[in-house]
Amino acid sequence: MSSSVRAVTFELDASSVGGMRCEVAVRMLEPFDESVVVVSDELPVLGGDGSAPSPLALFTGALAACLMTQIRMFSKRLGTPVDAVRITGRTEWRSIARAGEPYEAEPVGFTLDVMLDSEASVEDQQRLIEAAKRGCFIEQTLARPNAIAHRLWVGDGWEEV
Amino acid sequence: MSSSVRAVTFELDASSVGGMRCEVAVRMLEPFDESVVVVSDELPVLGGDGSAPSPLALFTGALAACLMTQIRMFSKRLGTPVDAVRITGRTEWRSIARAGEPYEAEPVGFTLDVMLDSEASVEDQQRLIEAAKRGCFIEQTLARPNAIAHRLWVGDGWEEV
Repeated sequence: MSSSVRAVTFELDASSVGGMRCEVAVRMLEPFDESVVVVSDELPVLGGDGSAPSPLALFTGALAACLMTQIRMFSKRLGTPVDAVRITGRTEWRSIARAGEPYEAEPVGFTLDVMLDSEASVEDQQRLIEAAKRGCFIEQTLARPNAIAHRLWVGDGWEEV
Repeated sequence: MSSSVRAVTFELDASSVGGMRCEVAVRMLEPFDESVVVVSDELPVLGGDGSAPSPLALFTGALAACLMTQIRMFSKRLGTPVDAVRITGRTEWRSIARAGEPYEAEPVGFTLDVMLDSEASVEDQQRLIEAAKRGCFIEQTLARPNAIAHRLWVGDGWEEV
């Protein structure tokens, strides 16, 4: 069976020069050309200025938006017409602090509840959600363990961390 | 050894009423109170208006910003002073399309390279990055397989999908 593979690659360049505000220049390298700046900050209670969403708020928005986008894209391809779409849900983590050490972070759970304004049968709507889950880049990333490679600049070269 | 656990919970409410633009109301329920709206769109080539970052651009920004924030927070706690911080890197996925079916998404790799403007020793800088990785909610989420629970509204109740 024929299949086609398409790479989707972004590069990022993030800067922080004080406080908790972070500006990330994000550029899609393939297959298209998107250049945006994503900004985050923390609440004053965490030492920030509250000038932008926190990284976890951005993540939560991106997760819901990714599934939403996939539902809209696949609605046409599967011939399951959909008008308005609403997704509600939760993202949950916890931090665990042992005496004298910085806390460690842990995911707890993620839920996404979908309401489709559609004349299609429940079976067709379920098929659409199933396809959207498989096509959602963020959901598929969360579904499996991913290694993140880190390097630290040590003045005359990079070292793995 | 004493340890304290703190829950970090967000609720989300995402709407799409046409095109590819998605508006997500994100509210932190605990431990603090943050309410923001995260907006995404897609490029015109994908049927959008390009009025906001794509979900994957938001995700890429959130990932870098999360590690950045952790570095700044733990810099104080670990007594490793840091001035400017820069993180560069890549996020990579691929889509696989079999004839006649909607594509499926797959993560390929994530890299984050850190440059610290710091007088601290390389060992202390490495310790700081290690702690930041363990404290970064998004990195720790990506590091393990997560189940995402989905439900579909079927008119008179919710059904698991």
